[in-house]
Amino acid sequence: VTDLEQLETPFLTIDLDAVERNIARAQEYCDSHGLALRPHVKTHKQTRIARMQLDAGAVGITCQKLGEAEVMADAGVEDILVTFPVLGETKVERLAALARLCRMSIAADSPAALAAAGEAGRRAGTPIGFLVECDTGGGRLGVQRPEAAAELAEEAARMEGVELLGLMTYPTGEGTRRFMDAARRAVERRGLVVRVVSGGGTPTLYRTHELGGVTEVRAGEYALGDRSHASTGVVPLDDVAARVEATVVGRPTAERAILDAGSKTLSSDLSPAGLEGHGLVLQYPEATVYELSEEHAHVDVSRCTAAPQIGERVTVLPNHVCGAVNLHHEVALHRSGREVDVVPVPARGLVR
Amino acid sequence: VTDLEQLETPFLTIDLDAVERNIARAQEYCDSHGLALRPHVKTHKQTRIARMQLDAGAVGITCQKLGEAEVMADAGVEDILVTFPVLGETKVERLAALARLCRMSIAADSPAALAAAGEAGRRAGTPIGFLVECDTGGGRLGVQRPEAAAELAEEAARMEGVELLGLMTYPTGEGTRRFMDAARRAVERRGLVVRVVSGGGTPTLYRTHELGGVTEVRAGEYALGDRSHASTGVVPLDDVAARVEATVVGRPTAERAILDAGSKTLSSDLSPAGLEGHGLVLQYPEATVYELSEEHAHVDVSRCTAAPQIGERVTVLPNHVCGAVNLHHEVALHRSGREVDVVPVPARGLVR
Repeated sequence: VTDLEQLETPFLTIDLDAVERNIARAQEYCDSHGLALRPHVKTHKQTRIARMQLDAGAVGITCQKLGEAEVMADAGVEDILVTFPVLGETKVERLAALARLCRMSIAADSPAALAAAGEAGRRAGTPIGFLVECDTGGGRLGVQRPEAAAELAEEAARMEGVELLGLMTYPTGEGTRRFMDAARRAVERRGLVVRVVSGGGTPTLYRTHELGGVTEVRAGEYALGDRSHASTGVVPLDDVAARVEATVVGRPTAERAILDAGSKTLSSDLSPAGLEGHGLVLQYPEATVYELSEEHAHVDVSRCTAAPQIGERVTVLPNHVCGAVNLHHEVALHRSGREVDVVPVPARGLVR
Repeated sequence: VTDLEQLETPFLTIDLDAVERNIARAQEYCDSHGLALRPHVKTHKQTRIARMQLDAGAVGITCQKLGEAEVMADAGVEDILVTFPVLGETKVERLAALARLCRMSIAADSPAALAAAGEAGRRAGTPIGFLVECDTGGGRLGVQRPEAAAELAEEAARMEGVELLGLMTYPTGEGTRRFMDAARRAVERRGLVVRVVSGGGTPTLYRTHELGGVTEVRAGEYALGDRSHASTGVVPLDDVAARVEATVVGRPTAERAILDAGSKTLSSDLSPAGLEGHGLVLQYPEATVYELSEEHAHVDVSRCTAAPQIGERVTVLPNHVCGAVNLHHEVALHRSGREVDVVPVPARGLVR
């Protein structure tokens, strides 16, 4: 394949020129505000794009599961933070094996997860970096009070096989600074050093200096963008790098077009930005992707002046890029439509 | 791995004993009502389960995309209906190659898709079976009027490379009989024979004889079941064969438990039966999976008398089994917990 038009649809494409612009923008922002950038690779799941991020100045990468970290460590990434509790014998052994390959850190919020990290560090003979996960408003994992963060930090500082690095939260939000400042002071009152305060999330990436309280930014979606981030302007529409090439396979009524890209191609993820519908059809912005079947997108074209016809190719921006990338065995990397390179997605589907 | 408890979580398991019960129930129902059963393999994506369905009496299988059909034909399946329009040179060539391997049929609603089928049949030297897709209330693809069905059927009957088989709709619903009876009469008025009227969908599978109008049932989810079908009773809870083994990885508050199975494990698919939440935790039926992140299930355990603790294993029924199976590189087949066999999912992610 030498041309995106030759790809059999549906196909996910990623424009590396746009990726480079997105990486440069985020790195410049972080550099200008004295923030470390530690990209989350769960978005692109590609060793090649991780390498682009590191070459641009990232301090390391973030993975959500050990399987992703294993792919990245095998590709030579030297500093990986896994922002998910590692529990159980098999995972402890895998974390130990990773720690023999590269610098590994874990973020977690429980003594059980801390103990597992310590066990892995002792087996590896090199400590696992540890960040105390704090719930600063996200309502997912994380200790609930700054003093609880300090208690777990103190336990980490005492534990063999673990090196206390600091604090972590997701996402960076309006409540982050207050919690993290209090947690940092509580840790420091115990005579411990907080080297890293790690925050995350693309929606607030470029507001990190205002929201404050963190020294490091974990963001993933900024590199590829999607319909949601284009709608908020965090990633300009022209820089949305991940797009789905689709074909109109039916026009059963004057109002309805059916595309060959459904929830197995775009994912069922609703827009994190709260947009209605399931994607943006670039050539027909007045169209609404009002429903997805597994293999069909149901599109209302009643507001289009000239509606797409059967056999026509269209380009769809997914609601949520991470969910979409995870569905594809392979993607077509390209540079502004040239140098098309169909490659596997090595870290996809690695939920363990 | 010899025991499901040894599987590292999250892991999708499929109980072949339950699958056998589900297959037998559906086949008996169809046999007793003189209906042909043509299972949709998009649910399990497994050649082994397709073989079980054929051995039990299915007349052939249904696939949604050519990629699925290629996997099944390679495994020796001899009769495949693809219920999706095949358009474009590459797909025509693939359909022709399939037709050289086995009996292929296509359902479609447009002259363009009919022409593509004809081209494939002529290249293969053997006709492609053709069913006219009718929109009997589903609102997806399908001709809108019985007379339009007859027009496309007549075009198919005249086309070299195609053999007119009859009519198809999805799902079989309250409007199916009236439309299909009228369409059949309209086709027959043109001197043509309607050999097959194919309906689909697990929710109405066991009501097909009441709803009427079809000679063949395409259903997929009946074989595995899920939370939605258990809630309606179409698949008894004990016969839900596909389940996700997960681990509690956090208990940040008294009300909240976090599991290591998120939308990348369960899928973001909402319940087709309209249930709230994202899965059923079997051991804690009072718990509510109120939100999914990609790798986290957020569970409200406030109504549980004894809530699950960190490190504890739980079993989750996904909302929608097809979406869940599609996410997994491999699944653990077993028989009531024994004979555990971890196998790949060969027809997963084949969207082209």
